[in-house]
Amino acid sequence: MSDNTFGKMFRVTTWGESHGPAIGCVIDGCPPGIRLTPEMIQEALDTRKPGTSKFVTQRKEPDKVQILSGVFEDDRTDGPRTTGTPISLMIENVDQRSRDYADIRDKYRPGHADYTYDAKYGVRDYRGGGRSSARETASRVAAGGVASQVLKSLYGETLTIRAGMVQMGPHTIDRQRMDWATVNDNPFWCPDPLAVKDWEAILDSARKNGSSLGAMIEVAASGVPAGLGAPVYGKIDTELGAALLSINAVKGVEIGAGMAAAALTGGDNVDELRAGTGGPKFLSNNAGGVLGGISSGQEIVARFAVKPTSSILTPRKTVTASGQNTEIVTKGRHDPCVGIRAVPVAIAMMACVLADHALRHRGQCG
Amino acid sequence: MSDNTFGKMFRVTTWGESHGPAIGCVIDGCPPGIRLTPEMIQEALDTRKPGTSKFVTQRKEPDKVQILSGVFEDDRTDGPRTTGTPISLMIENVDQRSRDYADIRDKYRPGHADYTYDAKYGVRDYRGGGRSSARETASRVAAGGVASQVLKSLYGETLTIRAGMVQMGPHTIDRQRMDWATVNDNPFWCPDPLAVKDWEAILDSARKNGSSLGAMIEVAASGVPAGLGAPVYGKIDTELGAALLSINAVKGVEIGAGMAAAALTGGDNVDELRAGTGGPKFLSNNAGGVLGGISSGQEIVARFAVKPTSSILTPRKTVTASGQNTEIVTKGRHDPCVGIRAVPVAIAMMACVLADHALRHRGQCG
Amino acid sequence: MSDNTFGKMFRVTTWGESHGPAIGCVIDGCPPGIRLTPEMIQEALDTRKPGTSKFVTQRKEPDKVQILSGVFEDDRTDGPRTTGTPISLMIENVDQRSRDYADIRDKYRPGHADYTYDAKYGVRDYRGGGRSSARETASRVAAGGVASQVLKSLYGETLTIRAGMVQMGPHTIDRQRMDWATVNDNPFWCPDPLAVKDWEAILDSARKNGSSLGAMIEVAASGVPAGLGAPVYGKIDTELGAALLSINAVKGVEIGAGMAAAALTGGDNVDELRAGTGGPKFLSNNAGGVLGGISSGQEIVARFAVKPTSSILTPRKTVTASGQNTEIVTKGRHDPCVGIRAVPVAIAMMACVLADHALRHRGQCG
Amino acid sequence: MSDNTFGKMFRVTTWGESHGPAIGCVIDGCPPGIRLTPEMIQEALDTRKPGTSKFVTQRKEPDKVQILSGVFEDDRTDGPRTTGTPISLMIENVDQRSRDYADIRDKYRPGHADYTYDAKYGVRDYRGGGRSSARETASRVAAGGVASQVLKSLYGETLTIRAGMVQMGPHTIDRQRMDWATVNDNPFWCPDPLAVKDWEAILDSARKNGSSLGAMIEVAASGVPAGLGAPVYGKIDTELGAALLSINAVKGVEIGAGMAAAALTGGDNVDELRAGTGGPKFLSNNAGGVLGGISSGQEIVARFAVKPTSSILTPRKTVTASGQNTEIVTKGRHDPCVGIRAVPVAIAMMACVLADHALRHRGQCG
Repeated sequence: MSDNTFGKMFRVTTWGESHGPAIGCVIDGCPPGIRLTPEMIQEALDTRKPGTSKFVTQRKEPDKVQILSGVFEDDRTDGPRTTGTPISLMIENVDQRSRDYADIRDKYRPGHADYTYDAKYGVRDYRGGGRSSARETASRVAAGGVASQVLKSLYGETLTIRAGMVQMGPHTIDRQRMDWATVNDNPFWCPDPLAVKDWEAILDSARKNGSSLGAMIEVAASGVPAGLGAPVYGKIDTELGAALLSINAVKGVEIGAGMAAAALTGGDNVDELRAGTGGPKFLSNNAGGVLGGISSGQEIVARFAVKPTSSILTPRKTVTASGQNTEIVTKGRHDPCVGIRAVPVAIAMMACVLADHALRHRGQCG
Repeated sequence: MSDNTFGKMFRVTTWGESHGPAIGCVIDGCPPGIRLTPEMIQEALDTRKPGTSKFVTQRKEPDKVQILSGVFEDDRTDGPRTTGTPISLMIENVDQRSRDYADIRDKYRPGHADYTYDAKYGVRDYRGGGRSSARETASRVAAGGVASQVLKSLYGETLTIRAGMVQMGPHTIDRQRMDWATVNDNPFWCPDPLAVKDWEAILDSARKNGSSLGAMIEVAASGVPAGLGAPVYGKIDTELGAALLSINAVKGVEIGAGMAAAALTGGDNVDELRAGTGGPKFLSNNAGGVLGGISSGQEIVARFAVKPTSSILTPRKTVTASGQNTEIVTKGRHDPCVGIRAVPVAIAMMACVLADHALRHRGQCG
Repeated sequence: MSDNTFGKMFRVTTWGESHGPAIGCVIDGCPPGIRLTPEMIQEALDTRKPGTSKFVTQRKEPDKVQILSGVFEDDRTDGPRTTGTPISLMIENVDQRSRDYADIRDKYRPGHADYTYDAKYGVRDYRGGGRSSARETASRVAAGGVASQVLKSLYGETLTIRAGMVQMGPHTIDRQRMDWATVNDNPFWCPDPLAVKDWEAILDSARKNGSSLGAMIEVAASGVPAGLGAPVYGKIDTELGAALLSINAVKGVEIGAGMAAAALTGGDNVDELRAGTGGPKFLSNNAGGVLGGISSGQEIVARFAVKPTSSILTPRKTVTASGQNTEIVTKGRHDPCVGIRAVPVAIAMMACVLADHALRHRGQCG
Repeated sequence: MSDNTFGKMFRVTTWGESHGPAIGCVIDGCPPGIRLTPEMIQEALDTRKPGTSKFVTQRKEPDKVQILSGVFEDDRTDGPRTTGTPISLMIENVDQRSRDYADIRDKYRPGHADYTYDAKYGVRDYRGGGRSSARETASRVAAGGVASQVLKSLYGETLTIRAGMVQMGPHTIDRQRMDWATVNDNPFWCPDPLAVKDWEAILDSARKNGSSLGAMIEVAASGVPAGLGAPVYGKIDTELGAALLSINAVKGVEIGAGMAAAALTGGDNVDELRAGTGGPKFLSNNAGGVLGGISSGQEIVARFAVKPTSSILTPRKTVTASGQNTEIVTKGRHDPCVGIRAVPVAIAMMACVLADHALRHRGQCG
């Protein structure tokens, strides 16, 4: 059933709960011979690490990744390389702050999966959200670090992935001012440097009020060759969409013109073609780099909406596990804008989807 | 790799091209003992049938479904029932109008998958879009007819699915006037009877101009019990989202509050709970019936954007397969608003996703 | 769950019952650009066709295969080629002799799956065994015909597959006399020409007595390059073994030295290596061409035991569906040695397993 | 592609190499609410532990299993229970004896997967066999410990699994003397107490000579309800056979009468039925408890052949990685009869296959 597995040839299976001893993933199907060190994965993980600014959870997790299998350093070679066998990655949970869980054990937090997990399984690890915690995404980011090396081995530096926050709450960026080179310079991965100042004040205020804000994230990959993807259910945009929708708190996803395409006419929406070198050039990119589920060589562009953190300081109506009306205030270490931490996860998911499709394409089409 | 397969326990594999001898699907994993006649499937198919109004393709296809396997009528029983073995459904292509394909053989139609299929496979069935034709969705609708019977056998008449067009081009409905009982009374499956009149004129004009319009479709299921779905990559909204994204021409999908959730605060977005009979009641449904990927018992609500048909009468710039600049006008039998035909497909996909998750849940959780 | 699907990249899903309107399969993942005509598949099917000698079922089935999708003949090319999309194959059931099924409807035939299908599904298509009929293997042979073309496109004429009956009932061949060139000259596909005469008399006698005989089949592939396969559960011998075990009536399978390896010492069993051109040469082949689940470049050799047909003219004790003791004599068109018809099926399964692993290897390892 | 995954609903993915920091597995799809402690798994692991007699590898591994996820002890309940989320198990490799690997790095050990891994991947972890080491089976045994708890939760103590060695080298047991109660009393898990004495002397001699012996293992499950399994490729005997074939060094597998069925007549082979309570009773069990791939309620019986350990003290001809002729003597900690350690693995694989099919059956058929 593979509910916790993503990908078909580059397969990532994640495991672990927020407050268990560790989290991790197993990657099956990674090609052999790819240089891979813990540092390469750590680099990706460090971008996602909790506690890096006042705008993300203050949980103190070193998030040190260990490679437990699938990589071998022959004493005749220049460093560890993948062997083609399963790569097991593990990240220990360190800061499992001891606290009293009676409140969230007995009450369903609104906006969280507490009630639904109980409805499904009749049992749940209520500590910090258990399996439904955003902590699971650390495993994805680690897997994305491996996927990035796969892509580099296939396409060199041609293929690049970028992501950033393009809307925080109702506040959108000015796309005229967009400069992707600046996303690492601010705590929002926001590509509009002028918006950043306002956002800092706005989010600081939300944080102090115990409120929270939603966000819109954009992720894009350029340098993807034409021809990756598959018809019907294996469409590359279908699988990228699913990958993004599977991130905690995501409520919608769009490709290229996306939702706005509904309002267009065919004449406005169609991307015309002109002769180019190495394939046709497109005069616009409403398609978001995908036609019929297969990459066109244009930039693949997706956006997704992250709902505001449900854990807020305002008391909310809810019920107890035994069915009594009550109220709850979710205290603890929480993000005022959980969308921030979704940015590195989006990069990881894009990398995994592309690596998976690259291998599938090579398998079927040579 | 299962690129043409959807679902994990209720598995639908579709096959066929627009202008081949037939299209169809194989359903593996259907429970045994469910009453199933061709008429039950035909009913679903007839809603999707081409040529039913001037607003959908004038291709004349009877779309008669044949059940080739998986159903058996014991002479002691009251009619044919599924046997638990693969159900093979076939629909013959009848109206494969003979015409000259030289134009679309040699030129890439902008907005279509012509170039990308060639880039991937080096060969393509250019007649009518081949595998990337919306004709493939007839197989989905047939499978949805089977899934509906599965759901009926599990939940009786409690579980219902509805869908309709809530936006055509830039024209949105007035949600105050929504009346789902009226969707079958107009050619758009539009739930706002007052909008229909305007839409008829607008679309007629688009059709006459050889233009086309995008659309937004809403699909919802009520009566879904709490507890269907799974964590992480098997989330019911992830899989429903993927199912909808895999429909031709879909560019975005959202669940519940969807894209609008990005602009909300936590206080506005959270659905509060009150004690109820048979599980808690929610005071709102921004979640769209899903929390942590698992159904909450609320209505599951999704919307998706369908881009305007790319085949329009205005000449568009493109290139030939050999890389020369040229222009193309896509003639032939085409829909001015392909979103119309996505409505029954959306119902089918919702039914398939729910049937699949219902069986998966029964398997894992009893 | 894919109970009716075989393979991971070259995926074959079969459907159909013995007495339904048709049987067939869908092949997903076939590479594009491979020449494929119905005649190429028919050639494989004709070897398996019922009614070709007095030793196989007298059911009269033309077994004409139709290709319903996945193949396209561009008018500029030299014949139909695969497009990379699902290939749907259909074979109509013609000789569904009308007869009285009351006996097998009400009584469980011993040695058949009648009782177990009822125990599982609560319903079964009792006509001719329904889904458990050996008729299903026609779909496999058709798929094998496609797999053979895939292998030819990858390896040319280097890779060859042969199969034959090496034991009928207790009668074994003399391996000193083996001549694979003679297998097509006798109705048993027996590679020992001298054994054939005896076998004809023996089986004729069994046929006339309404008895039946088991058989041992050997299937081998030479010219398989080293490196196909995968560790642990994806071993090429594991998957080949499963493919052969899934054929009707097969009760055991072995690779290389097989069961006899249990009686050997390490010194006797190990295949020593010597330097060779294009990889090492082995001095023996107890391994059957596979080490650690990965092909070694030697001939891949498997054998499997087919039980004697359970439908015999001697009355056997059984029970009715309602639990009463009774007796049954299975009349009808049956094979005195069902192992004969397993020979072309074995070739088909070997071809499918090799094609699947060839594509998987190309995907992961380039 | 899931090369390292076994099962469809109860899915086990193993990872790890012989001389890496750890090995382990992730189990996805385990039902919730099942009592599970490390001790329950440890009990199964201890039966397989290296170093328990002079007849198994002298590697000193405590093989302590850790449960890293998927189990939770609510403070209101009576002990840890599964939550329905992925169960991650890890076993640290402790005794990675430091030694000089230059010999096996540069020479291909005959009978091992050294050459084939190199042929496939171009790189291999040569330390102790890497991924192809029998050490991987510790992860399977741990997973089997979980599967056993699943079976107990479904069927109580009714379902039991037993396994033992029924042949060592050419020495078979006397089935008249078989007493399964004695298998734990001897280092071979041999069910014939009189054979044990001889075997001790024989294997001790083989061990001292640096030779090795093959073995035949029998594994059986009684109390399996009728109706588990599926048609065609999902047959329970096909999947059990694959599970056993995937164990290191296994060269053949058979169900019920197995290979011997080839020599039988239909009259001898068919298991007749008589009316019984709770389903028919069979008068014999040549079928090995499976008809048409579905369990019949009889005991499910399989046997498999394990080749003799290839690592022996006699020098064997081989080639170097660079293609030069040479000889090799495999020193180190090795088993004179590797079949001994396959016994607990066989029990684990049977438990996993049955748990998987039990859940799949419940999913499809309720």
